[in-house]
Parts: sequence; structure tokens; C-alpha cells
Amino acid sequence: MMIHRVVRDLVTSKRNFWLAAKSLRVVEDCNGNLEVALDPIGTKPGDYVVTIGISAARIAAGNPKITTDLTIGGIIDYWDEDRWHG
Amino acid sequence: MMIHRVVRDLVTSKRNFWLAAKSLRVVEDCNGNLEVALDPIGTKPGDYVVTIGISAARIAAGNPKITTDLTIGGIIDYWDEDRWHG
Amino acid sequence: MMIHRVVRDLVTSKRNFWLAAKSLRVVEDCNGNLEVALDPIGTKPGDYVVTIGISAARIAAGNPKITTDLTIGGIIDYWDEDRWHG
Amino acid sequence: MMIHRVVRDLVTSKRNFWLAAKSLRVVEDCNGNLEVALDPIGTKPGDYVVTIGISAARIAAGNPKITTDLTIGGIIDYWDEDRWHG
Amino acid sequence: MMIHRVVRDLVTSKRNFWLAAKSLRVVEDCNGNLEVALDPIGTKPGDYVVTIGISAARIAAGNPKITTDLTIGGIIDYWDEDRWHG
Repeated sequence: MMIHRVVRDLVTSKRNFWLAAKSLRVVEDCNGNLEVALDPIGTKPGDYVVTIGISAARIAAGNPKITTDLTIGGIIDYWDEDRWHG
Repeated sequence: MMIHRVVRDLVTSKRNFWLAAKSLRVVEDCNGNLEVALDPIGTKPGDYVVTIGISAARIAAGNPKITTDLTIGGIIDYWDEDRWHG
Repeated sequence: MMIHRVVRDLVTSKRNFWLAAKSLRVVEDCNGNLEVALDPIGTKPGDYVVTIGISAARIAAGNPKITTDLTIGGIIDYWDEDRWHG
Repeated sequence: MMIHRVVRDLVTSKRNFWLAAKSLRVVEDCNGNLEVALDPIGTKPGDYVVTIGISAARIAAGNPKITTDLTIGGIIDYWDEDRWHG
Repeated sequence: MMIHRVVRDLVTSKRNFWLAAKSLRVVEDCNGNLEVALDPIGTKPGDYVVTIGISAARIAAGNPKITTDLTIGGIIDYWDEDRWHG
């Protein structure tokens, strides 16, 4: 699993059926690389989170039919920002 | 999931059975790296899109027998091109 | 499988149901890149471990419903730290 | 999916059962990185091809028991070699 | 699939149940990056091998319950070491 910081929501006008009603967040890693994660637990910009990839991402979304390859799995209580260069 | 920009169509004369009738797009990430994504929703060059990888790509294609590892999942309404160096 | 060194525990206050009661460890590779791994065998900071990714990570967790993409699979008896620049 | 150029055949004397009778090709990406792909469609050195990874690679091989993680999915009709630094 | 060179055995005192009786090898790619692969066919240090990743790694291990994400699939008869900088 990866450690990401939530940047903001992602708005898409035209979207795959199984993602349609889901919250998507733009997240960044410690080098500033961006990815998009499904958020089933409710996060806000600035939160440090654990993200789950691979087939586990679909299970973590609560329904393996949900077409995600990255899902937020938890909010980290404290994260040392010194390692963060984003 | 990744953020990609659609570059153009990909034409292949000889193709795997399950990809045969599908639209393929060349897409690039913010560093200009190219990949090929299946497009089940209809995009055009220049669109910023969310792409879905791993086993979720097959589900997002509408049929898990479709042999894709990257499928376009949505068109992003607005994307800040400042992050884009492609 | 990858070789990682255990850095410390990861504490998350809000966590995905299937990860809820599991031990998570922050691990680093030889370049100092951090990831988070589920620990079903009991490791301590400083241990060199083999980590298992992809769908095998869920099986290695003891239950394929557990939403992990990286699971510690074994403690390495001896590891040459000369290769380690973390 | 990735874009690769076929370099040559790969000959292995001792091979996994499910790969035993299959054609394997050494392929390279635009940076010259080498990988090995299963070739179910018949390619020749110099062909630019679309390669399929992840679990879709096994399906693209025609039988999900075939132990490949990269399978050639199509031959690209025309590819601009200017992007190619291999 | 990747091309790796076998470096040596990996000894682990405490190991996941499904890996318990299996041979693990430390392997390196052409840049000297190390990974750990399950070896169902019998290799020795210095051998150039094809390694299989993703879910195919478990199938290549002979039993999909075996928790590997990288399995040696064949020994390469001849490999040009000029490409090898490890």
C-alpha cells in the first residue's frame, strides 16, 4: 500500500457506470506524482492516507464490480512531513 | 487511477480477438510517456481522462473477457495544464 | 517479491473494515522509498523482510477478503546492508 | 497497454509447462528497456506491437492457464519512430 | 515477463505458510535491482531466467494458493551480457 496526501476532488462529466456515484480524489505521493483514488471513507484535502491498489482496490471499495485500481483505505493519524517533498 | 491526455487513435491491422471491435487510444501522462487505452465512452484528442488499470480495466470495458489492462473511465471536466509537461 | 526493511507501525484512526484489526507496518526499500505492508507474522523495526504484492498479497494475509496489496511473507535471516542506501 | 518493438525470439531450454509450446519474443519499449512477451498472433523483428499486461495477458493468450504477464495483442500499422529512442 | 539473473538463495527463518517449503532466489535485473522469485524449476547462481509476474506467478508456481508475485518460468539458453550493467 502507498502513502498519499489528498489534493482535491475530481469532477468528471462523463464517467464509467460503476464509478458513477463514487467520490474520486486526486492524491499525490511524496514526490508530487498525481493519481486518482476512490474514497469510500470520507477524506478532505491535506489528509495523509493509505491507498490500496491492485485487485484489493475493488474489494476495498465495498463491491468488486466497482472499477477502481486505487482506493483510500485509511486516514493516517500522524505523518512526518519531513519525508514529503511534494 | 491515472490522469492521461488523449493523443490519437491507434490503428492495428492484426489484432487479438477480444480487442477486435474496440476503440483504442494512444494516451500520454504528464511526462509524455505513452500508453494505449481502450475507450468505451468516446473521447477525442486533447481530452483529459481518468484511466483505470489492473483487473478493473477489464470490468470497466463492459466485459471481463475483453483483454485490456487500461481503460478510459471518465472525461475530466477541467484539468490544470500547469502540472503537464508532456 | 521485494526486499524491505521494517521502519515502524502505522497508526490510522479511520480504516477500511477488512484492514481494521490488522497490523500495518511502514517499510522501505533499498532506496528509501516507503510503502505500507500488512504484517501477519510479527516483525519489529529493523527486520529485513520479503514482501508479497499483487493478488498474492491477499492470499498471504490469510483471507483473500483482506484488502492488502502488500503483505510481509517472511523475515530474512541475514541481509547484506552494503546494498542498502536507505 | 504498452507499445513495444519486437527484437527477436527467446530460446529457453528449460521452461514452465504452460509456456512450453508458446512463442516468446524479446520486446523493447521506447527507452530500450527489454521485456519478454508471449506472441499468439505471429510477429517478426522490427514490428511495432501493442502489448497487454496484468491478468488480461493470460486471457489474451487464449487460455487463462497460460502463465504469461505480457502478451502481444496487435501489430500497429504505422508508428512514428521519432518518439523512439531505443 | 522480465529477464533476470539468479544471484543466490534466500534464507528466511520465519515464513508464510504457502511459501514454507519453496525455493526462493534473489534475482537482479540488468540495472542491478534486486527482487525475490520463487524457483519451481531449479536454477543456480548466474543463470539468466525469464520471470513471470502478476497473477500468472501463482499459476506458474504449480498451485495458485502459493503466495508468490514472481516465479521463474524458464532458463534462457544464451543471453547477451552486453546489455547487462548489473
